[in-house]
Amino acid sequence: MKTYFPNIEKIQFEGTSSHNPLAFRYYDENRVVAGKTMKEHLRFAVCYWHTFCGTGADPFGPGPQQLPWLNNSNPMEQAYEKMDAAFEFFTKLGVPYYCFHDRDMAPEGNSVEESEANLWDLVKRAKDKQDESGVKLLWGTANLFSNPRYMNGGATNPNFDVVCYGASQVKAAIDATKFLGGENYVFWGGREGYDSLLNTNMKREKAHFAEFLRQCVNYAKEIDFTGQFLIEPKPMEPTKHQYDVDSATVIGFLREHGLEDHFKINHEPNHGTLAGHDPAHDIQVASDAGMLGSIDANRGDHQNGWDTDQFPTNLDGAVDIMRIVLEQGGLAPGGLNFDAKTRRNSTDLEDIFYGHVGAMDAFARALVIAEEMNAGDIPKMKQARYTSFDSGKGSEFEAGKLSLTDLRNLAASNGEPKQISGQQELYENIYNIHLG
Amino acid sequence: MKTYFPNIEKIQFEGTSSHNPLAFRYYDENRVVAGKTMKEHLRFAVCYWHTFCGTGADPFGPGPQQLPWLNNSNPMEQAYEKMDAAFEFFTKLGVPYYCFHDRDMAPEGNSVEESEANLWDLVKRAKDKQDESGVKLLWGTANLFSNPRYMNGGATNPNFDVVCYGASQVKAAIDATKFLGGENYVFWGGREGYDSLLNTNMKREKAHFAEFLRQCVNYAKEIDFTGQFLIEPKPMEPTKHQYDVDSATVIGFLREHGLEDHFKINHEPNHGTLAGHDPAHDIQVASDAGMLGSIDANRGDHQNGWDTDQFPTNLDGAVDIMRIVLEQGGLAPGGLNFDAKTRRNSTDLEDIFYGHVGAMDAFARALVIAEEMNAGDIPKMKQARYTSFDSGKGSEFEAGKLSLTDLRNLAASNGEPKQISGQQELYENIYNIHLG
Amino acid sequence: MKTYFPNIEKIQFEGTSSHNPLAFRYYDENRVVAGKTMKEHLRFAVCYWHTFCGTGADPFGPGPQQLPWLNNSNPMEQAYEKMDAAFEFFTKLGVPYYCFHDRDMAPEGNSVEESEANLWDLVKRAKDKQDESGVKLLWGTANLFSNPRYMNGGATNPNFDVVCYGASQVKAAIDATKFLGGENYVFWGGREGYDSLLNTNMKREKAHFAEFLRQCVNYAKEIDFTGQFLIEPKPMEPTKHQYDVDSATVIGFLREHGLEDHFKINHEPNHGTLAGHDPAHDIQVASDAGMLGSIDANRGDHQNGWDTDQFPTNLDGAVDIMRIVLEQGGLAPGGLNFDAKTRRNSTDLEDIFYGHVGAMDAFARALVIAEEMNAGDIPKMKQARYTSFDSGKGSEFEAGKLSLTDLRNLAASNGEPKQISGQQELYENIYNIHLG
Amino acid sequence: MKTYFPNIEKIQFEGTSSHNPLAFRYYDENRVVAGKTMKEHLRFAVCYWHTFCGTGADPFGPGPQQLPWLNNSNPMEQAYEKMDAAFEFFTKLGVPYYCFHDRDMAPEGNSVEESEANLWDLVKRAKDKQDESGVKLLWGTANLFSNPRYMNGGATNPNFDVVCYGASQVKAAIDATKFLGGENYVFWGGREGYDSLLNTNMKREKAHFAEFLRQCVNYAKEIDFTGQFLIEPKPMEPTKHQYDVDSATVIGFLREHGLEDHFKINHEPNHGTLAGHDPAHDIQVASDAGMLGSIDANRGDHQNGWDTDQFPTNLDGAVDIMRIVLEQGGLAPGGLNFDAKTRRNSTDLEDIFYGHVGAMDAFARALVIAEEMNAGDIPKMKQARYTSFDSGKGSEFEAGKLSLTDLRNLAASNGEPKQISGQQELYENIYNIHLG
Repeated sequence: MKTYFPNIEKIQFEGTSSHNPLAFRYYDENRVVAGKTMKEHLRFAVCYWHTFCGTGADPFGPGPQQLPWLNNSNPMEQAYEKMDAAFEFFTKLGVPYYCFHDRDMAPEGNSVEESEANLWDLVKRAKDKQDESGVKLLWGTANLFSNPRYMNGGATNPNFDVVCYGASQVKAAIDATKFLGGENYVFWGGREGYDSLLNTNMKREKAHFAEFLRQCVNYAKEIDFTGQFLIEPKPMEPTKHQYDVDSATVIGFLREHGLEDHFKINHEPNHGTLAGHDPAHDIQVASDAGMLGSIDANRGDHQNGWDTDQFPTNLDGAVDIMRIVLEQGGLAPGGLNFDAKTRRNSTDLEDIFYGHVGAMDAFARALVIAEEMNAGDIPKMKQARYTSFDSGKGSEFEAGKLSLTDLRNLAASNGEPKQISGQQELYENIYNIHLG
Repeated sequence: MKTYFPNIEKIQFEGTSSHNPLAFRYYDENRVVAGKTMKEHLRFAVCYWHTFCGTGADPFGPGPQQLPWLNNSNPMEQAYEKMDAAFEFFTKLGVPYYCFHDRDMAPEGNSVEESEANLWDLVKRAKDKQDESGVKLLWGTANLFSNPRYMNGGATNPNFDVVCYGASQVKAAIDATKFLGGENYVFWGGREGYDSLLNTNMKREKAHFAEFLRQCVNYAKEIDFTGQFLIEPKPMEPTKHQYDVDSATVIGFLREHGLEDHFKINHEPNHGTLAGHDPAHDIQVASDAGMLGSIDANRGDHQNGWDTDQFPTNLDGAVDIMRIVLEQGGLAPGGLNFDAKTRRNSTDLEDIFYGHVGAMDAFARALVIAEEMNAGDIPKMKQARYTSFDSGKGSEFEAGKLSLTDLRNLAASNGEPKQISGQQELYENIYNIHLG
Repeated sequence: MKTYFPNIEKIQFEGTSSHNPLAFRYYDENRVVAGKTMKEHLRFAVCYWHTFCGTGADPFGPGPQQLPWLNNSNPMEQAYEKMDAAFEFFTKLGVPYYCFHDRDMAPEGNSVEESEANLWDLVKRAKDKQDESGVKLLWGTANLFSNPRYMNGGATNPNFDVVCYGASQVKAAIDATKFLGGENYVFWGGREGYDSLLNTNMKREKAHFAEFLRQCVNYAKEIDFTGQFLIEPKPMEPTKHQYDVDSATVIGFLREHGLEDHFKINHEPNHGTLAGHDPAHDIQVASDAGMLGSIDANRGDHQNGWDTDQFPTNLDGAVDIMRIVLEQGGLAPGGLNFDAKTRRNSTDLEDIFYGHVGAMDAFARALVIAEEMNAGDIPKMKQARYTSFDSGKGSEFEAGKLSLTDLRNLAASNGEPKQISGQQELYENIYNIHLG
Repeated sequence: MKTYFPNIEKIQFEGTSSHNPLAFRYYDENRVVAGKTMKEHLRFAVCYWHTFCGTGADPFGPGPQQLPWLNNSNPMEQAYEKMDAAFEFFTKLGVPYYCFHDRDMAPEGNSVEESEANLWDLVKRAKDKQDESGVKLLWGTANLFSNPRYMNGGATNPNFDVVCYGASQVKAAIDATKFLGGENYVFWGGREGYDSLLNTNMKREKAHFAEFLRQCVNYAKEIDFTGQFLIEPKPMEPTKHQYDVDSATVIGFLREHGLEDHFKINHEPNHGTLAGHDPAHDIQVASDAGMLGSIDANRGDHQNGWDTDQFPTNLDGAVDIMRIVLEQGGLAPGGLNFDAKTRRNSTDLEDIFYGHVGAMDAFARALVIAEEMNAGDIPKMKQARYTSFDSGKGSEFEAGKLSLTDLRNLAASNGEPKQISGQQELYENIYNIHLG
């Protein structure tokens, strides 16, 4: 069989003494941390789109990356080769999962039926490859943003015909995901938003979005698809005002429309940054609501106001995520999907290995640190700040038993509260001690 | 009686031919637009804090503005003089409303009781001044952010004693607002938020906030205060992550805790900007939810990442607000409160008149333009974009009658949807034609 | 001859009573303002790239705009049709100028020579069309950013071979500009910058850039090209750190390398916004240095951190630019080039007319307002703030005649300076009165 | 003698096995790295302003931090106590340097003469304390921003009287710095900038600034002060457009006015962030120009658009700085001054020790890592990218010997350049391997 990465052997764990940039220094898939292997904790996935379809195009020029699996001019043949390359990559990297959009895997046809047939052809092939390699599907999704027909929106398009077209793609993508044993299904509303209020009825568009999602829930029941539905928040790109701004906005929307039991959040840290939050904040918001379902592990640039989708090789960012993941008892059935791409000028095929290896190592190291951190002083110190609510009047307040007048009377009798330092610098020093 | 603005006469309407910067060119309070006077539409209010308490301090130096009503070293005497100046200003400017925090109006005492007594003393005085001048109270509020005791939060403080202290202030401020006939009561969570997740239990703090608000609702019922409760969203200042980020976040929080029937949004455009939204977006979100209660009319700088609280003298911003306000049938019982301040180096007493006059004129002009715009082509063109949902299959979709499979089948039989331009440039040209 | 805009007649001036969005309400090319016609003042140009080459692609999908002049699959034939469409558009819109990159006008060939031949073919054609239509070339430029070979930089590429390749394009583009009577030649360093300091020797790259520019100056002398060389600043896109950040950075770079007499600034307001400045600030910086050469008239979104290149239909932005332009005595040989594009979903051919008409009207109106404003109170009030430097000790200070000790002694004898309000609100009100 | 930190012993080095947050884990002042001790490399300084004068005030409330050395109501007595506390702190922390503004150390008097006398009194006291403790002065400066008289600018004030007043302060501060053996003198233009172009003649103001600096240079020669003059760039705060935006802007300004031989840059990373740059970029710009003089070591929040002045405890930021510092052969006579403050709610006196200890450890660790990194593969790989300029035609280009035509001819004969990956992910992985 043809190989696309002839110079790359399966990536091995070599430990921290290794200086080999194509080996893992921290990620040892069988190492047990807090009762589970690293592989089980981290549930890494590779994304199909950036890694096998993207060639580095940006608004100022086409992509310079020459991917040998994209050379065949017959779209279906190209798709087959791309899939071969993808599974070779998954296997050599040693990740348990992958993720895809319908249009990443199979080319769009000239009709709904032809697109469905193309997808089905590739999906059956993928099933065989999964069985052969042991690689599994973390989630599938449908691309309702690239095709020009979605320029005014997918599920929120002012033209009902386009909404139907989007539905046809989503139905097929859910079918495909079910067939492939996908553990989740993701909705990212790429064009669900608007650029100008002058020509937009936001309320009506969002109501359409809710109805669309409701029918997806119904359909999943109908076909007995039991994967978790996920919504991926993102603000401001590509439309000025995307509807799924951040975790709080999405959760509020789901609750408004009675959909909160059927969806969780697929969180992308880079999108949290774009929304003006520390990524950990937005992830904590989702987790606190019991709705953190999966992570699109990447990082952004804090100053470029667009989605740079860089590999998450920054240790502190990974630690912040893993602390929350461990506190909520893990991500399953979600995982850590590397929605990340090499820089435009990283044109060697090795570069996509460097990116993934660096990110996997960062998260493996972060897992160990986060586990130690969560068992250390920080949670105890944090807990101690709230002890006044654990008993006595404070706990009565939490139980809803104290009126505003009761509270006022307590204040009057207590006098000026004692000043208590927030000690942020101390917390940060302890955090740094855990980091190394 | 002593006058604080001896050089200023009551501001008059002089029409657009006037070049007098201390006259109104557009604001003619009795002019009728769409069945109501400008005064009734706009419901302008002056804020007590910036206008009578602020002297231009910033993080790099104390305030240079020498306000003659702050010269008395006895705090209560100073408060009396400040109130005299305030009502002289309201009257000379010709606004129907004002707004205040407890600590703007009366100095904090050495105990809960003393603070209450100070406030009550001033509030009775304010009642007399209201009766005398005809100026009314748009809303009252409590300052739970300036005093060092709130450094770790007010209602969300990890120390229950501080929560009680905050409750004592809110109770007194609601009492004062009721006594003064205030038409609303505002909650701005100045210190409700956090700087570091390391030392913060966000979920518990937000639950405390909800419980606090619930007891305020109960108290209002108990004392029969019928004013509208309002929450004012703001992100990132003073804490890194304020809990009340934007309209969508606040509305979602209220719904989560079953409080949505008791609160509306007091929207500050500048805060919308800081949240990464066009202010009109955030206002539309609130209005679409039936929860746009009032506006803290100001504007921010798009590039300074802090609250500049500038006077809203930009016509397009005012038009965008008034279009939404008219569409929802007005703001009452809310209004347009100028939560705005002169620049630090605007040290003449006339400067606060210039700021208010410019802003009132901008909104008066905007009211007329918005009324014409809403009656013009833009709403019709916008409505026409959605006609596919007004009947036939589109309306069945809106009614929840079409399954995902139905939608897919429609797509398959329809074929590729017709491309329809969003025509944003045309909308913008028409918008500009309305602007003049 | 084939027409590409059969539904569009030549755009006419109809005056402010017109509500025709395809007519000028303010731009009357022969109207005289301060001794020159509007046409002479504004020197409008249409850009070849966005208007005739761009189809609305963005990072999330290909362009939906179907441009009939791009249908021919033969690249040279396509280029001929595109040029026909362009000159039809220039003529129907009634602009005196246009601008182009080498690759906009002629397709890249398989070698330096073939690319040169392609360009020369089209340039000769353009010369005929210019002569026929009376439309002139404001400036030409070379595209050293789209082709993958420039992925690591053009003139600043670490590989000397690429620098040579870039030089071949620039030489040909200067030749073309000279042949076409272009009044300026622009350098925008699309890929001149870097993403990571780890792999970048910034100092060496910038020295290469300076040497490259020096050879361009020499070449212009050699061939007697007398057009003005212009550099266009832009920060952060496409590379994280573009070398030509803003006006001050570019001017400092030119001075460091002794190039300041040979270049001026081509300023794009949107790029000023991205650099964290009010556009007017960056334009004033260039003008104060005697180096404001031309304007790429557009506007950006204040919150999207990328180049939205929207049509500059906002009146206040246009007024701020025209005030500076009038103060410096005009822009010639530069002009106002609409480096702007319709929104991705503006797919009707009329939409590019709407965009240009709206922008031309905004600038025409702004010209009149700015002329009145510059003749009004604002400049006088501003001048009066500095009178202490116009005579006496202040003027001695300006002349360099007072030592630090002299200044200290003056302070000691003067005592505390009188407080003088900056009166920003008053200035803003007068500004608004001029606006209407 | 009274102690202000009775619970704190001198901070000791305990090594990485220590979990004591009041000990150094990495900073061992006598450890030799590349031929110099850590103390000599890092040249740490404590700032007088945040650490001894700041109490945590922000725009929303006064400072909650109760500093026992600020209790005395007599300003001179308070200044004496503050100085005692400061030198106790310097000594217990074990830093070799400190920095101050005139007004930090001595209270302003009622006249120029009285202010000078107050300062002189304290400065003599400081001299004795320096001699006693061995702590030295890194730099002094004058505060021309806090006093309301500077609200319209210091050296750039439109009123010449204020410029003189500023000069009196600067003269006295230079005198004080010389007397104390200060190794540098810093200019931060706190109010040198503007909020509105309507009332500002930027060109004239900047010319005044240059003249002011020129007289300072003359004065230094006159009194034989041989310390290094430094300018500290900062954008957008407190004025919207500060004149000293970033390194490139300041360097360009100095060159324009012939001042480049007399000033270097005092760089504050947080200000680099606010200017839209990675801090390392702005530091590299200064270093490349031979003008990196000193560092105000802190860090900012990437999303709050204001100066948070946090302690620089982030390892990667410190490594990025130390790599540049080592490459240029050190910072002397400059140093690393902690222009950083504890968070507002860090109200224990220990908190200022935590902040400094964490930051000193981060920089000590970063020094070791940066030394290894600079000796490792990254510089070699980077150098190799530019080899085409080290000989042959590339080096002729660098020497100015190739015309544009020569370059074009080389391109024509070379054909398409070979594609060379930028390998950013590989560089980043190696960087991370060095980090640990």
